[in-house]
Amino acid sequence: MIPTLEWTPEGVRFIDQTKLPLEEIYVTASTYQQVADVIVTMVVRGAPAIGVSAAMGVALGAKQSTAKTTEEFAPEFEEICSLLASTRPTAVNLFWAIDRMKALFAELSANKASLSEVRQALLDEALRMYDQDIADCRAIGVHGAELMPDGGGVLTHCNAGALATCGYGTALGVIRGAVEAGKHIHVFADETRPFLQGARLTAWELMADDIPTTVICDNMAASLMRQGRIQAVVVGADRIAANGDTANKIGTYSVAILAREHGIPFYVAAPWSTIDRATLTGDAIPIEERSAVEVTHHGGKQLTPHGVSICNPAFDVTPAKYITAIITERGVLRVPYSVSLGEMDGLAGERVPGADCTVNVPLTSVRA
Amino acid sequence: MIPTLEWTPEGVRFIDQTKLPLEEIYVTASTYQQVADVIVTMVVRGAPAIGVSAAMGVALGAKQSTAKTTEEFAPEFEEICSLLASTRPTAVNLFWAIDRMKALFAELSANKASLSEVRQALLDEALRMYDQDIADCRAIGVHGAELMPDGGGVLTHCNAGALATCGYGTALGVIRGAVEAGKHIHVFADETRPFLQGARLTAWELMADDIPTTVICDNMAASLMRQGRIQAVVVGADRIAANGDTANKIGTYSVAILAREHGIPFYVAAPWSTIDRATLTGDAIPIEERSAVEVTHHGGKQLTPHGVSICNPAFDVTPAKYITAIITERGVLRVPYSVSLGEMDGLAGERVPGADCTVNVPLTSVRA
Repeated sequence: MIPTLEWTPEGVRFIDQTKLPLEEIYVTASTYQQVADVIVTMVVRGAPAIGVSAAMGVALGAKQSTAKTTEEFAPEFEEICSLLASTRPTAVNLFWAIDRMKALFAELSANKASLSEVRQALLDEALRMYDQDIADCRAIGVHGAELMPDGGGVLTHCNAGALATCGYGTALGVIRGAVEAGKHIHVFADETRPFLQGARLTAWELMADDIPTTVICDNMAASLMRQGRIQAVVVGADRIAANGDTANKIGTYSVAILAREHGIPFYVAAPWSTIDRATLTGDAIPIEERSAVEVTHHGGKQLTPHGVSICNPAFDVTPAKYITAIITERGVLRVPYSVSLGEMDGLAGERVPGADCTVNVPLTSVRA
Repeated sequence: MIPTLEWTPEGVRFIDQTKLPLEEIYVTASTYQQVADVIVTMVVRGAPAIGVSAAMGVALGAKQSTAKTTEEFAPEFEEICSLLASTRPTAVNLFWAIDRMKALFAELSANKASLSEVRQALLDEALRMYDQDIADCRAIGVHGAELMPDGGGVLTHCNAGALATCGYGTALGVIRGAVEAGKHIHVFADETRPFLQGARLTAWELMADDIPTTVICDNMAASLMRQGRIQAVVVGADRIAANGDTANKIGTYSVAILAREHGIPFYVAAPWSTIDRATLTGDAIPIEERSAVEVTHHGGKQLTPHGVSICNPAFDVTPAKYITAIITERGVLRVPYSVSLGEMDGLAGERVPGADCTVNVPLTSVRA
């Protein structure tokens, strides 16, 4: 399995995703500040992976603290959470994970837990989230597998794979689940400008799994759809609003429109932690604008004229009406999502046949 | 004016478009074989520019021939035309230009013209095509200007500018025409993967003309449309079939669908030489597949995993139903194009008010 991130005695170890696919380099963040930096610089990316990274960052912050008591540590805990929450704005899993750590800390504080107990409990919680993430991805894979074509082409955008999670992936988890169920799938991976997560990461991890993959430029998808070479689209998500509107990597909205125009189903695959029922519609989701250099340069080489104006929104919002179904670890949601999301909210932790390690999480610790 | 290509005593001089925008380097092709090479390697690109380059290549071939008589030169003439026609398959202007040179040569041969008269006539014809191309672009600009918004954003894909023609441009000619008519336009230039004609060439030539331009990744267009920042789309064309289906740079089809989904007009701007009434629909237009290296590498640096499968079609076809209007030097065509194209076919060389140098071309020398 691809070691996207893992807890080690020295800190949190990450595969450096800015260096893939040509270099497989690992970096270890030994402080929570370094974890924050790793998230900001996209050494680790992908909503679920960011969430667990932040939780491990909180655990690391508790470990590195020189405080003597839980009470003394409390303001420091706030600072740790605050720094980690400031790293990226769009993926809700980041806030979900930090809120979960905050809820636990509040409970431990109320119960007068010692700082050593707090440290252990925060680490245990982060490790539980890590295990749960992999289990969720496998459950998503089982639910999504039946929606995938057998013998057809499946388009994916960005990387919602093992590298975007603690392992297995969400959108790529669905593809892996279909392949494990015996289906033959040819993946078309949008290269996904400007950061090239598809060309670099999706291609790399699917090739490692011997799943046939063709990289295309983002602007080629429509042409392949028209040629009948794509039977389904599956993508991940950074935040799903209460009405089903979905923020995901820039370009996803475009793919969704093109899929509908060609009568191709468009699926979103994401763990429940990506669903943000406090955000009513996609219009309320903050969209991160990243540095122009991501667009103007590649590998240190400038592509554009000096001083040209650039747009670089990292995400866009796909309105719910373009989404055929949302695949979660709890099951497959259909329109109207405002209803189906509410109905499935009570089903947390239901055992999914074939997903052999679903972890039960008390709903109280999940952000409302 | 940007010197895309020009006839010189030493041969055909080109600005090397593979080096723009950071280096402004000129190369001179002193043989027709070098002209062919310059077209294949995309030192020059853009349908109208390719057409005139090929015509100049033919004139150059006649100049470099050691034949003594027109009769002796005839088989060599066929070879010259054949090599130049083999350079790229999609842009019909290439074949239109070569056919025009062939028709002239046949006429001269029939009239027993001397080889020296043939050489001069072929060169004169190429130079006439050069002047006509600039005049056509200006006429396109005049016709298209009134379709442009005043105070809005206009999206363009690839480069259909001065660099794609002998000067002024087709799609960018429309934008220049609107700006000259006093309209305020902000151009959004799709970077246009994989060759980045938008990021490199469109940005460069519009910045040189002080027309406000923002470069975006191809996958950002839908998001900007949804935000109401784009009021019109205008693109060039490599071949327009008899029913209006239009082949243009890969990604154009995608932009056309997105424009329609957002209620934004989608215009194609092209000289009449891009219209190929012998090709009945877009399905019959040959689409060039280019080297995978254009996608896998940039500036010599590899982006993708070793051995990954790649698609790299250089063009796609936008069905006529997505095209609001086709802007030519003869006027603005509307659906049904099979009818409007036929109606306008008799209007060649009509003087366009405001386009002060339209050249009359006898219809007999224009490919049917």
